[in-house]
Amino acid sequence: MPPDSTATKARLLDAAFAEFAEHGIAGARIDRIAEQAKANKRLIYVYFGNKEQLFETVVGRALGELADAVPLTPDDLPGYATALFDYLIAHPQLMRLGTWKLLERPEVAPAEVDAYRSKLEAIARAQGAGHLSRTLDPVDLLILVLGLTSAWFAASPALHSLAAQDPASPERLAAHRAAVASAVRALTAAASAPQASAPTGARRT
Amino acid sequence: MPPDSTATKARLLDAAFAEFAEHGIAGARIDRIAEQAKANKRLIYVYFGNKEQLFETVVGRALGELADAVPLTPDDLPGYATALFDYLIAHPQLMRLGTWKLLERPEVAPAEVDAYRSKLEAIARAQGAGHLSRTLDPVDLLILVLGLTSAWFAASPALHSLAAQDPASPERLAAHRAAVASAVRALTAAASAPQASAPTGARRT
Repeated sequence: MPPDSTATKARLLDAAFAEFAEHGIAGARIDRIAEQAKANKRLIYVYFGNKEQLFETVVGRALGELADAVPLTPDDLPGYATALFDYLIAHPQLMRLGTWKLLERPEVAPAEVDAYRSKLEAIARAQGAGHLSRTLDPVDLLILVLGLTSAWFAASPALHSLAAQDPASPERLAAHRAAVASAVRALTAAASAPQASAPTGARRT
Repeated sequence: MPPDSTATKARLLDAAFAEFAEHGIAGARIDRIAEQAKANKRLIYVYFGNKEQLFETVVGRALGELADAVPLTPDDLPGYATALFDYLIAHPQLMRLGTWKLLERPEVAPAEVDAYRSKLEAIARAQGAGHLSRTLDPVDLLILVLGLTSAWFAASPALHSLAAQDPASPERLAAHRAAVASAVRALTAAASAPQASAPTGARRT
């Protein structure tokens, strides 16, 4: 391999990320990725295999960076949700990439299952330690927290357009961020409401 | 127009719905739609215009049917969320269609803005009448309710696969449906918590 193969690979992956986020798998063009990365198109096949394999590599890399940047904090799910919201705002193409994946490549990948299993185990541990309500199954709880966090990005632009402020303004995003945090807090607090009354009775015995 | 044009149009729209939900706009093939509808391909252009216009017609029709089947009930948002969840379960291709639209045709359509404006006005009226907390902006509230309702469908199949039960089983869906209802209730209840304590004080006077 030539000495600059690492740099070439990184340029190809960056170009592939942008191309897949914009056009999806079926719509992506290997020619455009090579041109954007100023690399020979054949190198893509040499380094990464076919277009589908390149997509999986790009997604795996992006999800790995996300997991490193925003670790799950089961004792502070509102904090996790807002950190994830901030990351998605800072990386606007990531939601598009994940959405294309859901539509075009929904197959379950073992690495992704392992990543989610760790998160669910952390939530179950927090529930076991009493830091988090046990009312909801960890799968439902994580799905709902992720749903609240990504709701803004999944909402129709027609709905965004009806906000009083410019939907892309920092003020508007901060207001929605606060709404997400309060919603996750409400989800956790309400879920733990039955437990909250239990200690009162327990103290009597 | 031939006497059977209404039936032919309906067959074409049904076939187009299935084709767009499966492949999106760029991936859809007019040939396949015509073949599936057992109609002449030229009729698609005569009746509906180009592929993009056909997509808009299909989306408008699907959203209209959804709005008729699941009206917004601002005084009962948990009921609205579960009715919408049930509709999405019963029409599994609808979320895919809406997701392709978000990715491939995010332009704001006036009819869609009008539909959302009506919903936001209904929420604001319920807030004004004291039936719903005023803590959250109607736009944020509606986005979060929709995010909770669609969270299951937006979640990764890898996360679904970790549920204790078959993710497609009626029992599993019923459990998540109940979680959605409790989450929407928590969102509304927590938002109205300051109001909830007021009547207690009011009763004393």
